[in-house]
Amino acid sequence: MADHNALPLVILAEKFAALPGIGMRTAQRLAYHVMSMDEESVKDFAQALLSAKKDVRCCPCCQNLTERELCPICSDDERDHSVICVVESPKDVSAFERTREFGGVYHVLHGLLSPMDGITPDKLRVKELLSRIAEGGVEEVIMATNPTVEGDATAMYVAGLLKPMGVKVSRLAFGLPVGGVLEYADEVTLYKALENRNDM
Amino acid sequence: MADHNALPLVILAEKFAALPGIGMRTAQRLAYHVMSMDEESVKDFAQALLSAKKDVRCCPCCQNLTERELCPICSDDERDHSVICVVESPKDVSAFERTREFGGVYHVLHGLLSPMDGITPDKLRVKELLSRIAEGGVEEVIMATNPTVEGDATAMYVAGLLKPMGVKVSRLAFGLPVGGVLEYADEVTLYKALENRNDM
Repeated sequence: MADHNALPLVILAEKFAALPGIGMRTAQRLAYHVMSMDEESVKDFAQALLSAKKDVRCCPCCQNLTERELCPICSDDERDHSVICVVESPKDVSAFERTREFGGVYHVLHGLLSPMDGITPDKLRVKELLSRIAEGGVEEVIMATNPTVEGDATAMYVAGLLKPMGVKVSRLAFGLPVGGVLEYADEVTLYKALENRNDM
Repeated sequence: MADHNALPLVILAEKFAALPGIGMRTAQRLAYHVMSMDEESVKDFAQALLSAKKDVRCCPCCQNLTERELCPICSDDERDHSVICVVESPKDVSAFERTREFGGVYHVLHGLLSPMDGITPDKLRVKELLSRIAEGGVEEVIMATNPTVEGDATAMYVAGLLKPMGVKVSRLAFGLPVGGVLEYADEVTLYKALENRNDM
């Protein structure tokens, strides 16, 4: 946008356009929409942005994002803490929770191995997972990374570290469409993949 | 999103989802992205939201959005103030400015007549346009509303008010695809439509 637009709108549109998947046209539209919102809503929006950045941290146990000391899943005594489902990102935790079929706990790696992109094991939350296993009480670890090259490689790598520790390691069944993204799987497919998990 | 997600992220995702054209999945993605931005960028984003709402007003002359007393186009002495291009919204001003072919000034109606939706002439900035003409010095008014039913009706209505005041009124040529939206026209089409404008 050139300087014939009100400067604050140009700046806001640029902020929106910097978000993933939002082009300049859409960003401009969103900026105009913000102008038409009432003042209280805009303040709430701005506050929500600041709060999401400031108040959200990683759970010291499962590494999922939370605003509490310990996340609601890790602090839930009714869940089975002997089964850990290892996922790439917090979005995957949401996907599993939507199936309402998994009663165990999670571990979020915050990424997948990809040596070409410089993502080596030390960049992931692997040592935190090993500490959890070392503390004892864990019977099974389900590797629930995406069925992609990186997801499989990460699952193999982590499984290799866990097996000598005497814990059962399983992998999601390939009910998932290969090459797809876990986050977009429907609930039934995801549940089937969980149910038919195999030893690895 | 259920309560297994960090609350501030859920709230932020809901704010994004309330924007036009953004679904819950995209909103969740954007919320996670905000978390990965550095703190300064998030603060800038929040500030941009507040500023767009607080510091943007309507230019008292052309009614376009601006952060100044008088907008840059109205306060530009090198532009031809005797030709006024009447458009529906500030987005249309941006569209015309992108053609770099129009040297006159604008008038933003902030809507189109649509009696079914309760948008009657008093809801538009029509009387402000009439005041500008009454002040004298205006030779031509180009009705540049969208080539839709509402756009045509608004152009006809405004033209009917202006003609008795002794000012030439023209309409954009229908080089624009009929039924389309002005904002998405390419620069050349928009320039042709401006060049071939007809008396009405």
